[in-house]
Amino acid sequence: MSERRSGSAAFDRPPGLTYNPPVMKWIYIEDIAAWAGQSVEIRGWVYNKRSSGKVRFLIIRDGTGILQATHFSERKDDPLFAKLDGLTQESSVIVRGLIREDKRAPGGFELVLEDIDVLQVARDYPITPKEHSTPFLMSNRHLWLRSQKQHAVLEVRAEVIRAIRGFFDSRKFRLMDTPILTPSACEGTTTLFETQYFDQKAYLSQSGQLYNEATAMAFGKVYCFGPTFRAERSKTRKHLIEFWMVEPEVAFAELEDIIELGTDLVVDIVGRVLERRRKELEILERDPAPLEKIGKPFPRLTYEQAVPELKKRGSSMQPGEDLGAPEESLLSEMFDLPVCVTHFPASIKAFYMQPDPARPDLVLGVDFLASEGYGEIIGGGQRIHDPALLEEKLREHNLPRDPYAWYLDLRKFGTVPHSGFGLGVERMVSWMCGIRHIRETIPFPRLLYRIYP
Amino acid sequence: MSERRSGSAAFDRPPGLTYNPPVMKWIYIEDIAAWAGQSVEIRGWVYNKRSSGKVRFLIIRDGTGILQATHFSERKDDPLFAKLDGLTQESSVIVRGLIREDKRAPGGFELVLEDIDVLQVARDYPITPKEHSTPFLMSNRHLWLRSQKQHAVLEVRAEVIRAIRGFFDSRKFRLMDTPILTPSACEGTTTLFETQYFDQKAYLSQSGQLYNEATAMAFGKVYCFGPTFRAERSKTRKHLIEFWMVEPEVAFAELEDIIELGTDLVVDIVGRVLERRRKELEILERDPAPLEKIGKPFPRLTYEQAVPELKKRGSSMQPGEDLGAPEESLLSEMFDLPVCVTHFPASIKAFYMQPDPARPDLVLGVDFLASEGYGEIIGGGQRIHDPALLEEKLREHNLPRDPYAWYLDLRKFGTVPHSGFGLGVERMVSWMCGIRHIRETIPFPRLLYRIYP
Repeated sequence: MSERRSGSAAFDRPPGLTYNPPVMKWIYIEDIAAWAGQSVEIRGWVYNKRSSGKVRFLIIRDGTGILQATHFSERKDDPLFAKLDGLTQESSVIVRGLIREDKRAPGGFELVLEDIDVLQVARDYPITPKEHSTPFLMSNRHLWLRSQKQHAVLEVRAEVIRAIRGFFDSRKFRLMDTPILTPSACEGTTTLFETQYFDQKAYLSQSGQLYNEATAMAFGKVYCFGPTFRAERSKTRKHLIEFWMVEPEVAFAELEDIIELGTDLVVDIVGRVLERRRKELEILERDPAPLEKIGKPFPRLTYEQAVPELKKRGSSMQPGEDLGAPEESLLSEMFDLPVCVTHFPASIKAFYMQPDPARPDLVLGVDFLASEGYGEIIGGGQRIHDPALLEEKLREHNLPRDPYAWYLDLRKFGTVPHSGFGLGVERMVSWMCGIRHIRETIPFPRLLYRIYP
Repeated sequence: MSERRSGSAAFDRPPGLTYNPPVMKWIYIEDIAAWAGQSVEIRGWVYNKRSSGKVRFLIIRDGTGILQATHFSERKDDPLFAKLDGLTQESSVIVRGLIREDKRAPGGFELVLEDIDVLQVARDYPITPKEHSTPFLMSNRHLWLRSQKQHAVLEVRAEVIRAIRGFFDSRKFRLMDTPILTPSACEGTTTLFETQYFDQKAYLSQSGQLYNEATAMAFGKVYCFGPTFRAERSKTRKHLIEFWMVEPEVAFAELEDIIELGTDLVVDIVGRVLERRRKELEILERDPAPLEKIGKPFPRLTYEQAVPELKKRGSSMQPGEDLGAPEESLLSEMFDLPVCVTHFPASIKAFYMQPDPARPDLVLGVDFLASEGYGEIIGGGQRIHDPALLEEKLREHNLPRDPYAWYLDLRKFGTVPHSGFGLGVERMVSWMCGIRHIRETIPFPRLLYRIYP
């Protein structure tokens, strides 16, 4: 098979609908063990290379793994040598050869090179093994994704998402996608993205919860899972402008039910990452020991129990104030497990939260703070089911009634207690991977002033 | 156990963190078969009721199914009679009793009522068994979702989505979420939603494809699956303003590979719906016979083969024009299977589409048109991999180079042929369910001028 040239004519195929199957079986590196002893084709990119005298080592990545291809020749003028020596980092190639088990090779297998097509020799790939600044890497995010560490983080992300969907699907929660474009900016527009929706204004959703409450009354137990948006002018390592959130909602569930559900979910995700993404945690140098301790039940503190603990640990937070990032870290460092903080002052929480019947100044809400100081991963609680009380809360919060007419309907036509929560995917991934800055946990992070690429 | 009253005191629980488990096992109707012969608790809403002399029948829905609860008494003053007779459609209740197999009951089981808690008697539920206008139902979408038909459509939707994720996950495609907020409105702003992103403009994504091309070079085979947005001023039964799309992208794949992938995906979804959602198709009076015929391979037509066929069938479309909805319907009615239309004129397709090497005026694109006249469900093709050609196409389309700098990078650093497509979830669901209007295939449709609830 002749070498393919880079450039516009490089991949010419016969015209029309006829199709040339590859000469050898094209396989992915992750499946290599099944092909030991056979000749295959690998399509990918040059990750690295080494040479010593009569041997050439080409490290190939194909997006699913990394494989060493070797070529040995006594001939100095071996034509493959010339091809191999001209290759640079991220050059695109198709290699063919025999898969051979070799304990010394990374991954335990190597390919004995028989043939190579060079599709393109990459010139001046900007991300080299040397150190680069974060802004530089962020501006080259489309290429940075190819690096081993970023690759590992995003494999963990995909695993976390699969774990979440598997968890809710196996418990027969109905996936009910909630809308992104919503008509009202009831709770103020300061952190909302606004857009013109034909003849009116619309806003990008910050949560599917209110809609979940409607679908929960129709389907019993539901979840939505999609992107959410907060136009916050805050530049912290825990905030993204656009992030993914899974939100279950359960009719007839009360605070305790939802704490149990959230606990099971977190334990399930952690277990699945440990089971299937060991290799990635290793690449990330993430010590798995703290994750291996995660199990039921999680420790609990009421807000009023938490305040003196925080004071003892030097926080200047005043009773009645919301927990900030430093307080979350302090509480989270008290335990080896995630901690559930419950029964917050009503004044710092949303209008729809169910008051504690014994202490109407507190609400039946819960925040899950991840261990190791990673802070909030889940926020949720029980929603007000009583129509008169909900109307009263709308008035107290100076919220208009009209945009909430449909939401009030849910309390008029067969109201039931119900509860739910939201889990932020990127914060979960950041905890799993042991990375302190959330920007690496999503393929293309949206940050304050950063929207490229 | 005493009756719970509706109103704010109805669900009082002891304060603090202690929790009262229910007296009997709370189960969901979908799991009822496993509980035959046992006493259980069902929590739900009154769907309907009947009475005749000494018997009361209460039809309960709990979001997972419908169950008949019966009560028989010789006593006219039986206290349960009074409770049952006061119930209205959508009243919320907790019923307890023995599950008994009964072939005459809908679903094959019934509950012999022992006790009932009435949580709230619903007054004047607006959706009654009589006919309602579509605008009325759309304005009450939050309640309409509870009706049996809407329920069935959305169960099919959830199944279609599970099928899609299962398909790509089992083929080891990596889920790589692409951003919704994007920085440039390169192809014109007419169908884009615009928002202020701090100090610049941003636009809601119409497709994750360009970003998929970057992640495909990092992960080999990827997919994104999320909401997309088109601010089209068109009011047709096939268009939503906000809709969900799954988009796979495969490095080293060419047009034929992606046609095979799309075919496998469609066959897989149809098979899964037929296997698991028969009951829902029945409720929707959807004849499954046309779906049972769906199998590989799908018939194919090039655009140039399609044009004379359309003319024969009375279309006034001129050669070189894009296929409109009527043309899609005409072509789709030629076959019992979805049809793949390929090799479109470059002039009607996007700048990034790979030209046919033998006919550079045509592009290696494909549209899948569903059978039975449902029209396009998939659009995709092979992307330009040659950097010089892509630059040339940008110039031809009068597109600025800067916003595409990162996209051009993908052709500079190890370019490879690659292909992908997008499948519209709502159109697929509409075809599966046999509903002609797409507005019922998503929980809260966003249509021209309609964004409430």
